[in-house]
Amino acid sequence: MSETRIHCPILRERIMTAEQAAELISNNAIVGMSGFTGAGYPKAVPVALAERIRKHNALGGEPFRISLWTGASTAPELDGALAEVNGVEHRIPFQSDPHCRNRINAGEMDYVDMHLSDVAQFTAAGFMGKMNIAVIEVIGIREDGSLIPSSSVGNNKAWIEQADKIILEVNSMQNLKLEGMHDIYYGTTLPPHAPVMLSHPADRIGEKYLQCPADKVIAVVETHLTDRNSAFKAPDAVSVQIADHILEFLKKEVDAGRLPKELLPIQSGVGNIANAVLEGLNEGPFKNLTSYTEVIQDGMLKMLKSGTLDIASATAFSLSPDGLKEFNDNIDFYRDKIILRQQDISNHPELARRMGIIGMNGLIELDIYGNVNSTHIMGTRMMNGIGGSGDFARNGYLSIFVTPSVAKGGAISSIVPMVSHVDHTEHDVKIIVTEYGVADLRGLSPRKRAIAIINNCAHPDYREELMDYFDRACNGGGGLHTPHLLGEALSWHQRYEETGSMKPAK
Amino acid sequence: MSETRIHCPILRERIMTAEQAAELISNNAIVGMSGFTGAGYPKAVPVALAERIRKHNALGGEPFRISLWTGASTAPELDGALAEVNGVEHRIPFQSDPHCRNRINAGEMDYVDMHLSDVAQFTAAGFMGKMNIAVIEVIGIREDGSLIPSSSVGNNKAWIEQADKIILEVNSMQNLKLEGMHDIYYGTTLPPHAPVMLSHPADRIGEKYLQCPADKVIAVVETHLTDRNSAFKAPDAVSVQIADHILEFLKKEVDAGRLPKELLPIQSGVGNIANAVLEGLNEGPFKNLTSYTEVIQDGMLKMLKSGTLDIASATAFSLSPDGLKEFNDNIDFYRDKIILRQQDISNHPELARRMGIIGMNGLIELDIYGNVNSTHIMGTRMMNGIGGSGDFARNGYLSIFVTPSVAKGGAISSIVPMVSHVDHTEHDVKIIVTEYGVADLRGLSPRKRAIAIINNCAHPDYREELMDYFDRACNGGGGLHTPHLLGEALSWHQRYEETGSMKPAK
Repeated sequence: MSETRIHCPILRERIMTAEQAAELISNNAIVGMSGFTGAGYPKAVPVALAERIRKHNALGGEPFRISLWTGASTAPELDGALAEVNGVEHRIPFQSDPHCRNRINAGEMDYVDMHLSDVAQFTAAGFMGKMNIAVIEVIGIREDGSLIPSSSVGNNKAWIEQADKIILEVNSMQNLKLEGMHDIYYGTTLPPHAPVMLSHPADRIGEKYLQCPADKVIAVVETHLTDRNSAFKAPDAVSVQIADHILEFLKKEVDAGRLPKELLPIQSGVGNIANAVLEGLNEGPFKNLTSYTEVIQDGMLKMLKSGTLDIASATAFSLSPDGLKEFNDNIDFYRDKIILRQQDISNHPELARRMGIIGMNGLIELDIYGNVNSTHIMGTRMMNGIGGSGDFARNGYLSIFVTPSVAKGGAISSIVPMVSHVDHTEHDVKIIVTEYGVADLRGLSPRKRAIAIINNCAHPDYREELMDYFDRACNGGGGLHTPHLLGEALSWHQRYEETGSMKPAK
Repeated sequence: MSETRIHCPILRERIMTAEQAAELISNNAIVGMSGFTGAGYPKAVPVALAERIRKHNALGGEPFRISLWTGASTAPELDGALAEVNGVEHRIPFQSDPHCRNRINAGEMDYVDMHLSDVAQFTAAGFMGKMNIAVIEVIGIREDGSLIPSSSVGNNKAWIEQADKIILEVNSMQNLKLEGMHDIYYGTTLPPHAPVMLSHPADRIGEKYLQCPADKVIAVVETHLTDRNSAFKAPDAVSVQIADHILEFLKKEVDAGRLPKELLPIQSGVGNIANAVLEGLNEGPFKNLTSYTEVIQDGMLKMLKSGTLDIASATAFSLSPDGLKEFNDNIDFYRDKIILRQQDISNHPELARRMGIIGMNGLIELDIYGNVNSTHIMGTRMMNGIGGSGDFARNGYLSIFVTPSVAKGGAISSIVPMVSHVDHTEHDVKIIVTEYGVADLRGLSPRKRAIAIINNCAHPDYREELMDYFDRACNGGGGLHTPHLLGEALSWHQRYEETGSMKPAK
């Protein structure tokens, strides 16, 4: 590290090692950590804490465990390290780490899967207990003690306000030119509050820095470490087909006067398919788009570069190594086209409704009536969590859900008679897109939805069997509003659990 | 009718009979009608239309059917009459009429069960087709052609804007002193729009009258008929116990500093239990409460009278005959304590979040993990619809769901292993109250929720069996995040369908 990034004299006195800082976290503490989609999470203290827990537990006696609350998903150095040593009793609100997931599904970690827009308010309201300590990555501390946020904002504003004590990691690997890209709003801690005066993704309503009372800061740790920066897979044929269908659908909506030609602000989920959709949009006819979303992915940088996208508002980056290089090499270009906000503002129901977000999110499975499962494998095992998809799908203008029609090489149909868990109800799911086409569910009764979903979206290998279920359900003696055969509705999942495939034995 | 309520000269020329007006509605038309919870619905034209349809269909040939979109539920003279003659092809967004329900569950009427806050925007967006004609009850027409709204506002602002033609029913039975109690806001037709500058239930942001272009009005029909005005049952022992538990819960929240002493604005579902809860609140220690809700029931009048409640904002009345007499006898007292708004404002996600609504709604069944079914009997048969419960539960500060622990004399447990349909996901359900107690699900993982729900809320007759399911699910080999036995999860419903009881045969 060439030059200090810690300009506050009081806080300079609190510099210590990660190991020393980790000693300041108590057993059973509620710990808020920064981090959202592998960006801006603390990278040294959690590793040191995991090591401390490992040693503690090797001695026997009462195990050392914490409650871990973050913005969203983090990385191996945080969720991975702490889950490996079984150091997390209670995890809120989103994760995507394999070790963490295994602990959750083994019944060894209590996981509360929450809407990302709700977490800050629930914490401030005291609904889940008092936060004892927060560990927050920043990229610099200003002379007055205010903080320059890192590559994600997430719940940091809330954690700094709500925690009794704060540990800061100052990461000199992050580009200092991030300074000024953030917009931290201090008007919504608890209701009732004033209207959030934001009506366009480019609006700035807050401050560039995180306020932080110096007397709560008990440790400052200097780091020089990169974010997770997972690589994206190049879009495969299925992703490209899905992207093409979305493009066609949006064009049709513009032609019919149901969307303005610059669309409405786009929200895009995270991952390879979402990134492929963004790449597709970048090659489409649209110009001057805006985005009001959670995460800036590689595809969004390309859209900004090409002029397809004018402005992107988010709470975090989630870039590949190539994407990060592009961003850092051209940060002067990107600086005034990207705004990073706290997640209770990036995902705010008030703003999703007012701006009329077009939400595009993935799923695990949906059923023939349009109920969506975003979280559970075969009804019982947690994958990642609902994340922000509910914030946007429920309150936005259009909710588009995208998925390949099958998974596990065809052994799983993404479209099933009845979903094994519901995260987005029939009331909130408007458009379904698979590589086979689009089902537009707007204004359709459940039986009409079933026909549209099976015919337009299901994989041909499963279409006949889905239609057979639907036909038999219609003749099964139950009500005809949402026909089901109760004894058979989850049989596809059960068959998969028993045989490894949803397909019936030949 | 002593004196005319139609002061606009042009519109006086369009006065005709209900039968003549009904002739102006075409076969296959999309028809918007006023009406919300049995208040403010047209009372003459739908009856005349039903008679016209009956005669038409008696001749054979292509049946006469319409799409019927309302605010919410109406009455026998509207949903009942039109459903009886099978004159409704497509029904949006809520109903509670027995004839209508039977048509839906027989597969004879397409029903789209929507969030009530979404309907106006979806219509304006053109997502469900173009509205041909609207039939709206008002209580007077002013000289400039603007309309004095009736005992409900519902979607009337949207229907008048979106329909090509308008039929007005001017009902002289409604108290003319309703004039001035309404607040019609013209800023939210389509996104993006400006912030809705409403931060307190008492705030007025709009106009007292409905704007209406006179050239769209093709008929004016004079009526002198009462609203549905269903009587409430006196609170039974179970309702009183539920109300007591809610009161205790709210007191505890205030004591813990999680709610201010005047609480936050209350939303209350409609019906006997909701009314009992309001009566309970009225006898509790709270003063200066506010309400931001859909419907003004009798219990709310009592709360206003006693000073427990300072202000009530809603989109409709739903009073008993006694309640209506009390209201009319004391309308000068109630006039400035009640504001009626269109339903996209009364139920607006932006406002529910900002003001921090405490939502209290009933349900049909919930499962041990906190998923709520508000709409479907045994997974297939529609009861009424989700109504506004999703608007408030999803975006408010606290979502409280209330239910007696059993139904059908004990043959149905309101708490089941897995719900047969989901309207409110585990992410949106915070507090469960039955006559046995309260399950506070905030911050709990699914397995912890199961224990709280079974122990605190389930009926003793079903507790052991629920716990047995949960225990076996935990040992069943699936994931332990949300343990389920897929082959058995809906078996309680199936048993009920087969035997008339969820209880196993002895």
